Amino acid sequence: MERAPLKFSKNGQPHSPGSVTYQATTDQLANGHPLALSEDEGIIDITTSGTMNERHMDEQINISHGSGFADSDDIPGIGQYEDFHTIDWQRDLARDRMRHRYIVKRKQNSVLDLVKGAHDAWSGWLCVLLVGLVTGSVAGIIDIGSSWMSDLKYGLCPEAFWLNKEQCCWSSNETSFEDTGNCSQWLSWAEVMGSNKDGVMAYILEYVFFVSWALLFASLAAALVRMFAPYACGSGIPEIKTILSGFIIRGYLGKWTLIIKSVGIMLSVSSGLSLGKEGPMVHIASCIGNILSYLFPKYGRNEAKKREILSAAAAAGVSVAFGAPIGGVLFSLEEVSYYFPLKTMWRSFFCALVAAFVLRSINPFGNEHSVLFYVEYNKPWIFFELIPFVGLGVIGGVIAYIFIRLNLKWCRFRKMSRLGQYPVTEVLVVTAVTTVISFPNAFTRMSTSQLIYLLFSQCGGVSYNHGLCDYIVNPNATGTTNPTTSEAGPGVYSAVWLLMLTLVLKLVLTVFTFGIKVPCGLFIPSLCLGGIVGRIVGIGVQQLAYHYPHIWIFAGECSTKDCITPGLYAMVGAAAVLGGVTRMTVSLVVIMFELTGGVRYIVPLMAAAMASKWVGDALGKQGIYDAHIMLNAYPFLDSKDEFATTALASDVMQPKHTDPLSVLTQDSMTVQDVETVLKETEHNGFPVVVSRESQYLVGFVLRRDLILAIANAKRTLEGLRADSIVRFVQTDSHQESNLPGASPYLRLDKILDMAPITITDQTPMETVVDMFRKLGLRQTLVTHNGRLLGIITKKDILRFIKQIDQEDSTSPIVMFH
Amino acid sequence: MERAPLKFSKNGQPHSPGSVTYQATTDQLANGHPLALSEDEGIIDITTSGTMNERHMDEQINISHGSGFADSDDIPGIGQYEDFHTIDWQRDLARDRMRHRYIVKRKQNSVLDLVKGAHDAWSGWLCVLLVGLVTGSVAGIIDIGSSWMSDLKYGLCPEAFWLNKEQCCWSSNETSFEDTGNCSQWLSWAEVMGSNKDGVMAYILEYVFFVSWALLFASLAAALVRMFAPYACGSGIPEIKTILSGFIIRGYLGKWTLIIKSVGIMLSVSSGLSLGKEGPMVHIASCIGNILSYLFPKYGRNEAKKREILSAAAAAGVSVAFGAPIGGVLFSLEEVSYYFPLKTMWRSFFCALVAAFVLRSINPFGNEHSVLFYVEYNKPWIFFELIPFVGLGVIGGVIAYIFIRLNLKWCRFRKMSRLGQYPVTEVLVVTAVTTVISFPNAFTRMSTSQLIYLLFSQCGGVSYNHGLCDYIVNPNATGTTNPTTSEAGPGVYSAVWLLMLTLVLKLVLTVFTFGIKVPCGLFIPSLCLGGIVGRIVGIGVQQLAYHYPHIWIFAGECSTKDCITPGLYAMVGAAAVLGGVTRMTVSLVVIMFELTGGVRYIVPLMAAAMASKWVGDALGKQGIYDAHIMLNAYPFLDSKDEFATTALASDVMQPKHTDPLSVLTQDSMTVQDVETVLKETEHNGFPVVVSRESQYLVGFVLRRDLILAIANAKRTLEGLRADSIVRFVQTDSHQESNLPGASPYLRLDKILDMAPITITDQTPMETVVDMFRKLGLRQTLVTHNGRLLGIITKKDILRFIKQIDQEDSTSPIVMFH
Repeated sequence: MERAPLKFSKNGQPHSPGSVTYQATTDQLANGHPLALSEDEGIIDITTSGTMNERHMDEQINISHGSGFADSDDIPGIGQYEDFHTIDWQRDLARDRMRHRYIVKRKQNSVLDLVKGAHDAWSGWLCVLLVGLVTGSVAGIIDIGSSWMSDLKYGLCPEAFWLNKEQCCWSSNETSFEDTGNCSQWLSWAEVMGSNKDGVMAYILEYVFFVSWALLFASLAAALVRMFAPYACGSGIPEIKTILSGFIIRGYLGKWTLIIKSVGIMLSVSSGLSLGKEGPMVHIASCIGNILSYLFPKYGRNEAKKREILSAAAAAGVSVAFGAPIGGVLFSLEEVSYYFPLKTMWRSFFCALVAAFVLRSINPFGNEHSVLFYVEYNKPWIFFELIPFVGLGVIGGVIAYIFIRLNLKWCRFRKMSRLGQYPVTEVLVVTAVTTVISFPNAFTRMSTSQLIYLLFSQCGGVSYNHGLCDYIVNPNATGTTNPTTSEAGPGVYSAVWLLMLTLVLKLVLTVFTFGIKVPCGLFIPSLCLGGIVGRIVGIGVQQLAYHYPHIWIFAGECSTKDCITPGLYAMVGAAAVLGGVTRMTVSLVVIMFELTGGVRYIVPLMAAAMASKWVGDALGKQGIYDAHIMLNAYPFLDSKDEFATTALASDVMQPKHTDPLSVLTQDSMTVQDVETVLKETEHNGFPVVVSRESQYLVGFVLRRDLILAIANAKRTLEGLRADSIVRFVQTDSHQESNLPGASPYLRLDKILDMAPITITDQTPMETVVDMFRKLGLRQTLVTHNGRLLGIITKKDILRFIKQIDQEDSTSPIVMFH
Repeated sequence: MERAPLKFSKNGQPHSPGSVTYQATTDQLANGHPLALSEDEGIIDITTSGTMNERHMDEQINISHGSGFADSDDIPGIGQYEDFHTIDWQRDLARDRMRHRYIVKRKQNSVLDLVKGAHDAWSGWLCVLLVGLVTGSVAGIIDIGSSWMSDLKYGLCPEAFWLNKEQCCWSSNETSFEDTGNCSQWLSWAEVMGSNKDGVMAYILEYVFFVSWALLFASLAAALVRMFAPYACGSGIPEIKTILSGFIIRGYLGKWTLIIKSVGIMLSVSSGLSLGKEGPMVHIASCIGNILSYLFPKYGRNEAKKREILSAAAAAGVSVAFGAPIGGVLFSLEEVSYYFPLKTMWRSFFCALVAAFVLRSINPFGNEHSVLFYVEYNKPWIFFELIPFVGLGVIGGVIAYIFIRLNLKWCRFRKMSRLGQYPVTEVLVVTAVTTVISFPNAFTRMSTSQLIYLLFSQCGGVSYNHGLCDYIVNPNATGTTNPTTSEAGPGVYSAVWLLMLTLVLKLVLTVFTFGIKVPCGLFIPSLCLGGIVGRIVGIGVQQLAYHYPHIWIFAGECSTKDCITPGLYAMVGAAAVLGGVTRMTVSLVVIMFELTGGVRYIVPLMAAAMASKWVGDALGKQGIYDAHIMLNAYPFLDSKDEFATTALASDVMQPKHTDPLSVLTQDSMTVQDVETVLKETEHNGFPVVVSRESQYLVGFVLRRDLILAIANAKRTLEGLRADSIVRFVQTDSHQESNLPGASPYLRLDKILDMAPITITDQTPMETVVDMFRKLGLRQTLVTHNGRLLGIITKKDILRFIKQIDQEDSTSPIVMFH
């Protein structure tokens, strides 16, 4: 028998794509949906309250072979949570273990069951394989699409309009492309319109086309997001962190979000806004993970298990964004994941690798390196250079702090003011300003990734460098040696001034861009900001070494040869700013070195990342993602935070001493009493005690289960009256119920969780928070000498931490922890 | 006032080096060691039972500014555990938080306190910095020493005996060294003895010297270990895993172990035994971490915090062993660590990087690569090659399984039989057999690392290849192209036969070697076994591709050029066997690619590692380290294991229904009653209940604290009689005690942990085990409706898991989980 899983949607949230729950009509319920509570045991059971009924369930499986487990997994409502609710990790994991036991048990029955068992065992790997394949493909499409559309702003390949500039010039086989970045096949819009190539008119034409395309792309992106998938905007990482920590946001990882975000990110990247596609790629990968997990009931039906797939998907997202599979796994582990068992790590790695492999096979960039910003140099760095590297780290931390502060202020203003009501207009204004400002400046006109590539590269590799490589040529140089000295020519100096302008522009633009209602990521703008700073510092150090080769620090290895690589400084600076903004550590270093292929430069990267993180932590405790989580008040319990408090559980628990705690008694309340409690309170669950006087704790029952059970009993149980007694415990003697004429009592022992997590009132809050984090609790009951005193929910914990943080911010820095 | 921390050593374990506890004489106790229990509050307190008394402690700090915290941290016995006991993570972390709070509070008092606070905040970083520096240096010394002594087996550099062969030949500036691996400066022992260079006599002389030096080195190593540091034998990784999971083995990480293991590993590596120095390097690094942590009371005095340093040290150990800092961190995370917060990860990375950097600066190998087996090739691999790679994974898994099985059998035999009593003899026999067998075979005569290097390398790079590169030269080749074809000549075939022989020899020798009483690691032998298999398979595939270039799988990219790199196969095979033996996953791949610099080959390595792990898991569930943990019955609670059970807490808890539970009551037992309970039982702690009848749980008290407290009270408390009442709770009214003539009661509320972790009897064991793992519990109390039913200790959990495992081994495979 098949049954549609039902879901009670209290507040009528619209059903977003990606959620596979169905609204249960009252009809369905009235038609005798077989909920628990039948007097005859062993057929079907509401086991919503996970942990306690496992053995019971197991026994039942033995009894009722026919309907068995696959059906009991279909019991309506099981494993479904309401929107914007916290999941119960322990319960979900218990459910999965139960499922697993059942499958192992069935395995011996028949070949089909054996195959089913094998499929179940494989499904985790299969699922991450699929996620990797799809993520790699989608990333390839996005890369190709956005590169084509980006070039569309500048011109067209008339012979084959579907080619981007690079491909167009390849097909022309001209060598001039290598030198100038242009070829005759590719026509700028001025040329297409038949204008003179170098005139003022051409410039204006190109300017107008540039701005128009950008506005078109941006407005399209904003409109798509607004109309079809409001969740598709932003980078998505704060929300994914929250979801992975065990929160339900229906539709956030749904198929509409996936489609709109994929299309939207192509559009918004192409529009030339100061944003990147790396953060959204993580979101897109997570959507893919979520959607594909529904192919495997093991994951799709179990929120806790699903998060294993989502962790792997996030790793794959970073992997394709940067071509960094190991960095992706570490990012998932360090930055976004909450529950990350080692099995998940291994699968994440597999997933990330498959995704990177697929992307490399698609080869959207058309070169042989799978990495984004491959640096071709391999020069050793010199020990004294650690000083400027650490300096870059400090600067990076400061820039990141400024950015976070300003961005948060602006986002808060957007939330509070009427600005928030005109998202599309905002996008258009930001785009217009960005493109109008960007076009005249060569460094801002090119795409941000191109700029980063230019900044990271060594002179000689890239030719269209806009003066950045205008070094003075040594006339005495002989054939084989490099004729250019490291003495900067006038082009370099003007490029530096332009870069400084670019830095300020990019910083300001990014502050206003991150948070507008199109898909937008932060990695690329951060890298760019840092790259600019780094390159400038690098050129400075280089000129210093050239003009003062006899200062002792340069004396050793720098006196004779060109020892400073400004590109390396750009790389280090980029890592510093990104580290300051996101507060990533190990994963940042690994991503940077996978991104650039610069294995030699782990130590410089590390030094800068460390300095940047410390400076950032000293100035303001949170990274951008945590700040946005806080701004949006997501219920995220950070596993990294440490705080000092002397509070005990009794200080935090509800109710405070004045109010009474809403409890149920194990066998002395009537149906009406219970319904009154349900009506008068809004708690999600109720402790069950022996009696109101003694308050000895028996178990915990969820509000949802209680409502379902009573509703069902009223329909199915003959003679149930409002004054029937509700029993949460099995009585040892059955005679009572057999007394003729007596009102039948309502047995609810099967929905009672008899193993709630309890703590004593003397438990320090640090331990309590630790338990919430590590065990993934939704609530814990507070007892004293076995008597129930109160309850602490995750909400109480979050409120408590917030309060502590506010007290903390006045006290001295705790930066090094 | 200064006090020596005291330690009660119940079973009189000898005090091994590295432990800084002192034996308290009864005199010290009798001289009025100020333990708790003074009637006047607020001076000093036994807060051994961590979690509950934090607030209390805090208040006291405020009261007694003078003696303050630094002293109360000195309270005898605090934070010290008995040998071979499990630590209580929650309690230790609570103690650290308390310490931290105190320091933060003091910070505002004076500049000195501010500096102290800053020092405290920095001490974690400072400590890992020191650990990194020292580890790098020690590793450098070991590398230099063992390379010199290894060469001593073959000959001598008469002009400068302290140079090894490579250095000796460098100083000679001869070019012949590159080609033949020999130079005139370096004299073989035959030459030193004045014999003819190539005669039979010379061969015999060299043979004899080879064996004699090996026996000398091995016997020295075994003798040193036997005499000074029995813990220095073996690889140490199983024990470190156990220690990191929260177990105390005094002296295992002490200074004697460090010294002897460092010297011993040089000797045993030089002796030519089939072992490596990589595992012991992890042990050595952990010793360094342990010793240096005593410089920082924050870590040295707190077993839980100390494990953060040890985790970082383990990462540094792998980092210097393989030149793989990232791999080291992942190894620490995946393989050895138990409690690994993200803060630790960052510090581990720093530590690993510093160590690798120092080692690179020392440059013991005298080349510019910091990696051990740098591969110079960069050829792409072809998609179809995944088939042989996976095949290698399968073979690797099987070889690893055979190795583990045989080694375990032999180790069990050693344990059971009288063989275990003659460790030095065993070492000598194994060494004699190894060297006698090894010398005639060119591949076994060279050191294992050299062999691995040879196997990994491409032909052309290494010249003294013993036929492995005897490819047929194409006579038609013109100048610039590579004249050698990939058609194997007769030398290759004979080398393959010799390699097969080497494989069998190494496998058998390693089985008998791993476990003898010298420092010995497994990584290098495993890599070597896998390298041999891989190279053989690689040559096979290469010849296949050469002779049948038109088979469709070779048709694409293999038809024209030499497409198969046997060295890559060797690398993949090495990863497969190592993966099968240790069951490492992500860390293995990362180590392999850091080890060889082969960034391109992540996918092949990963495919092989995965296949190998699956095959290994299917054949026998445990890796070598877990198997040895089990063999030695260490109390290690694996956080990776998953198991299926329907047991509830009530099935596992002690006591079983027949025996009564030893409990104390909160305010109705006399001193004599308590002493009787102490005398009649051996439990480490006792639950305290309201009354024997009601059994409502109040708290938990440790045996140790109870003994200390009563002993102290008897000395200090006037009028304490055997029939005085012991009170574990503060009474609200004080009049009772004030009644004249009444026997004074003994107040023990300060040693009572009022926040013990409790569970209900209906809790499924999976949840219980999860709680033990994640919260690091020592015991948990089992209740029903607030009434105490029993107790579950870590020992019970381990027993239970063992039992489950034994049941499991008969049931079908659960390999993919």
